[in-house]
Amino acid sequence: MIKREKGLLIVLSGPSGVGKGTVRKALFAQEDVDFQYSISMTTRKPREGEVDGVDYFFKTREEFEQLIRENKLLEWAEYVGNYYGTPIDYVEKTLNEGKDVFLEIEVQGAIQVRKAFPEGLFIFLMPPSLDELKNRIVTRGTESEDLIQNRMKVAKEEIEMMHEYDYIVVNDQVNLACERIKAIVMAEHCRRERVEHQYKKMLEVE
Amino acid sequence: MIKREKGLLIVLSGPSGVGKGTVRKALFAQEDVDFQYSISMTTRKPREGEVDGVDYFFKTREEFEQLIRENKLLEWAEYVGNYYGTPIDYVEKTLNEGKDVFLEIEVQGAIQVRKAFPEGLFIFLMPPSLDELKNRIVTRGTESEDLIQNRMKVAKEEIEMMHEYDYIVVNDQVNLACERIKAIVMAEHCRRERVEHQYKKMLEVE
Repeated sequence: MIKREKGLLIVLSGPSGVGKGTVRKALFAQEDVDFQYSISMTTRKPREGEVDGVDYFFKTREEFEQLIRENKLLEWAEYVGNYYGTPIDYVEKTLNEGKDVFLEIEVQGAIQVRKAFPEGLFIFLMPPSLDELKNRIVTRGTESEDLIQNRMKVAKEEIEMMHEYDYIVVNDQVNLACERIKAIVMAEHCRRERVEHQYKKMLEVE
Repeated sequence: MIKREKGLLIVLSGPSGVGKGTVRKALFAQEDVDFQYSISMTTRKPREGEVDGVDYFFKTREEFEQLIRENKLLEWAEYVGNYYGTPIDYVEKTLNEGKDVFLEIEVQGAIQVRKAFPEGLFIFLMPPSLDELKNRIVTRGTESEDLIQNRMKVAKEEIEMMHEYDYIVVNDQVNLACERIKAIVMAEHCRRERVEHQYKKMLEVE
């Protein structure tokens, strides 16, 4: 019989405003999804109710900077004075248990992960149109016209990075985007390069 | 907005006895499957009730041999004095209409199709074990032990051709095999190489 493969690293990214968080939450609310959500590491203080190892791995700046030096992060960035990153050990341990690991990160982070982990599954979440992306950015907050123009410029640059990805999933409807992502993961578990050696063993043994 | 891509050529193959026909029928019985089943061409006489262009394209030997000479067949073979094959024109016309074309063929035929049409999607249907394949061959008919041994030998040789395929789908349960095939097709419609140019147009226009 065929035993479970090593898990897949699934990276969902896309321009800011496309709805990555919404899609990720909808995906994890589904019963037939058994990906492991990758817990980020941060140097910011825990908020009320947040639990270490559940919401985040909370670290000091010294600890975090040491992990950076030791190349123990799949990707990291600094926002508003705090570090955020993805610890490589947790990801590898979970993959080795045969579980698929799911990362939802910004485009720049995804490019970092691709370099460290090219065998991952890189999915680019795409707005149905630039107009629609602008609508989503506008209705999200009270940004000024200048800020909106700037965010659209950044989004276009991020969309131009789509050639770094394996799949493009359009986020026209959240439930359809979820179906596509689940299909991609199921299909990748059937890719010949990934599973062939298991079947070759079958021929040798019997 | 994103218009429909050219369709995909989906080729389902696998060793004889694995259950290709059963999976194909189960797949086409499902409501959400809108592949176009590729109609074969043959020189055998129509049986009662068979309709030209529905069950088969019925041809004379002269017509068929001319199509072979003109390279108008994706694959062909001769069984018990009759030719069988897949007409390339019908497949291309259907793909250009944006429909996915589904072919269920023997391993040797699939290898021929791969050469003529490498951008197709080649799915290898795999028995859960060699013992299970033997069970299926044995329970199918009243073959002698020699014939069964011979069919198992051929099946093993066919399984060794799996490296020519893009995906391996294990036929442990027919409904699960169908789910995997549908997921593979959905995922391939999201592959970056296939759809990227459509999204690039979006960036240029807006």
